[in-house]
Amino acid sequence: MTKTIPVSVGIDLGGTSTRVGVFNPQLEMLRSESMHTQVSAGPDAAVKLMARTIDSLLIGAEGVRYEAVGIGIGSPGPINLRDGILGKLPNLPGWDGFPLRDRLEEATHLPVHLESDANAAAIAEWKLGAARDLGVDSIGMLTLGTGVGSGFILSGKVWHGIVGMGGELGHAVIKPGGWLCGCGSQGCLETYTSAQGLVRLAREVAESDEGTSELRNALVAPDHTTPQKIGLLAGDGEPAARRVFDGFGEKLGIGLANLISTLDLPLIVVGGGVASAWPFFADAMFGAIRDNSLVYRLAMPRQVATFEQDRTFVCPAALGSSAGLIGAALLPFMNEAGADVPAVHMA
Amino acid sequence: MTKTIPVSVGIDLGGTSTRVGVFNPQLEMLRSESMHTQVSAGPDAAVKLMARTIDSLLIGAEGVRYEAVGIGIGSPGPINLRDGILGKLPNLPGWDGFPLRDRLEEATHLPVHLESDANAAAIAEWKLGAARDLGVDSIGMLTLGTGVGSGFILSGKVWHGIVGMGGELGHAVIKPGGWLCGCGSQGCLETYTSAQGLVRLAREVAESDEGTSELRNALVAPDHTTPQKIGLLAGDGEPAARRVFDGFGEKLGIGLANLISTLDLPLIVVGGGVASAWPFFADAMFGAIRDNSLVYRLAMPRQVATFEQDRTFVCPAALGSSAGLIGAALLPFMNEAGADVPAVHMA
Repeated sequence: MTKTIPVSVGIDLGGTSTRVGVFNPQLEMLRSESMHTQVSAGPDAAVKLMARTIDSLLIGAEGVRYEAVGIGIGSPGPINLRDGILGKLPNLPGWDGFPLRDRLEEATHLPVHLESDANAAAIAEWKLGAARDLGVDSIGMLTLGTGVGSGFILSGKVWHGIVGMGGELGHAVIKPGGWLCGCGSQGCLETYTSAQGLVRLAREVAESDEGTSELRNALVAPDHTTPQKIGLLAGDGEPAARRVFDGFGEKLGIGLANLISTLDLPLIVVGGGVASAWPFFADAMFGAIRDNSLVYRLAMPRQVATFEQDRTFVCPAALGSSAGLIGAALLPFMNEAGADVPAVHMA
Repeated sequence: MTKTIPVSVGIDLGGTSTRVGVFNPQLEMLRSESMHTQVSAGPDAAVKLMARTIDSLLIGAEGVRYEAVGIGIGSPGPINLRDGILGKLPNLPGWDGFPLRDRLEEATHLPVHLESDANAAAIAEWKLGAARDLGVDSIGMLTLGTGVGSGFILSGKVWHGIVGMGGELGHAVIKPGGWLCGCGSQGCLETYTSAQGLVRLAREVAESDEGTSELRNALVAPDHTTPQKIGLLAGDGEPAARRVFDGFGEKLGIGLANLISTLDLPLIVVGGGVASAWPFFADAMFGAIRDNSLVYRLAMPRQVATFEQDRTFVCPAALGSSAGLIGAALLPFMNEAGADVPAVHMA
């Protein structure tokens, strides 16, 4: 006899790879597939490939039939979430203006819930990750990766901003006149606290009086493994690498201080690949938060009562690189269960 | 025959003066009284005086009886809005820990709705002021006065943060290592864009190569009229005074750029006494917003469709110095009408 299981399909669309996963209502991943995102083949080809992959993943197991309730997809931003249309995406050149939501619905005949990848990660950390047992209905999440993404849950709803961009804390300026950012502004948080920012900070230290041959060696022919190399050095206690993370933590702390001052949020989760270096930058980060935020200094004593200690309201992410995929998979279940994360919450 | 009119009592509690007004449901002010806030006499004496004033104001006119539905009071922050208790207020020394909401209810036998003054002003501008006809359900408001206050309406609700502090954008750092702020941080927005900040910026220009005797004269024995004097000079086209407002607008623009980058808000209202110099700082402010916010640059074209022109989503306040009082008076009506501004919206 065949048993039917309701499942949700999550998709994490990235500039390099795309992950598709099938999840049960307990958000356990039943099956998944990862594929190269063929950006130059264009979005229509990508949607076709997604649809085929979903079809194959939805073939049930022995005695089990999967019944998909819907698809959740997290995409790099900016997105016009109201209309389900992609914006001008640095990592998906040529895809701007593509009506991703509608095309994926047409290709799969399933309801599609589109979110920015940063918001999807925030939802996952809120419901199943770092915020899971804290009972908060508002969190901010920063994803420190190639860039710096941000997602907000405010009063139990994903914050989408005017047309779904939902804010880009990575492009808040923490040092007017500072490093030039790819966005055209100067001194954006992202220029210091992304993977690339870390490498740039490392180069600055390497070329200074505090530079060491170890750090300089790690920066010869820098590639995507360079941040890990700097992290390994810091883990060994190498002083120049520790200095790099001090500077990184200080810049991150200023950005977080301003977020706390602006919104007085109960919890901020820091995720993304670079966040794995948390032990190396946390002290400098908390120091800078305290130094730069009156609201943090005032709120600290009261938060003791809510959470574990006076500082844990800024904490590392719990779900690692799967947060975006899990968050995407959550969307169909949440919308089905009572729309506690409806599509758009603003004018 | 006596006609009964339901009225709301608004109170704008300030460090210098306290205003009490009686409003009809159309938010027309029927009667009001202004009094000196006798800070040193303590909060209990102040509550007694408020209660007596309210009693006298609620005496109806010929053939009209006023029936108070409740009291709304805006107080300087920080406030623990959940419990209705005042925080450590720089302008009301010795009042911290005072249970203002409960004591005022005991003294008046009316329901009391407590808000921060910045939030009360934001509510007023949202419902009856600058945002009145725009159909937005989210706004940010900055009040540039002795300090810089901020209030947010997000998705139709006042944003209160963890325990009612609701964020202090005035203490977001726009220049790390910049001017020392009264709060203990360096480079807070407030140090540049409050009335005192304006005077400080003016002194910097006056002492520089760009200084003029006109500006220096305006700064002899500075008092609370000095910002107006600088404004009058700027109105006359005096170059050094214009330079002061250029610098003021630039700093304000960085703060607003970061707010826009963080939350992608559809409307930001700039009020408070210093905002009356809008014509002198607006160009520099908009320039700095554009230079420092990717989100603003991306969102501009779409907002044309929503509002009048590409820049008006940052606009001056419409209600002047009465915003706080009107916002306070709105609270009892709003809560009565269906709690679209309930007391606390966060964990």
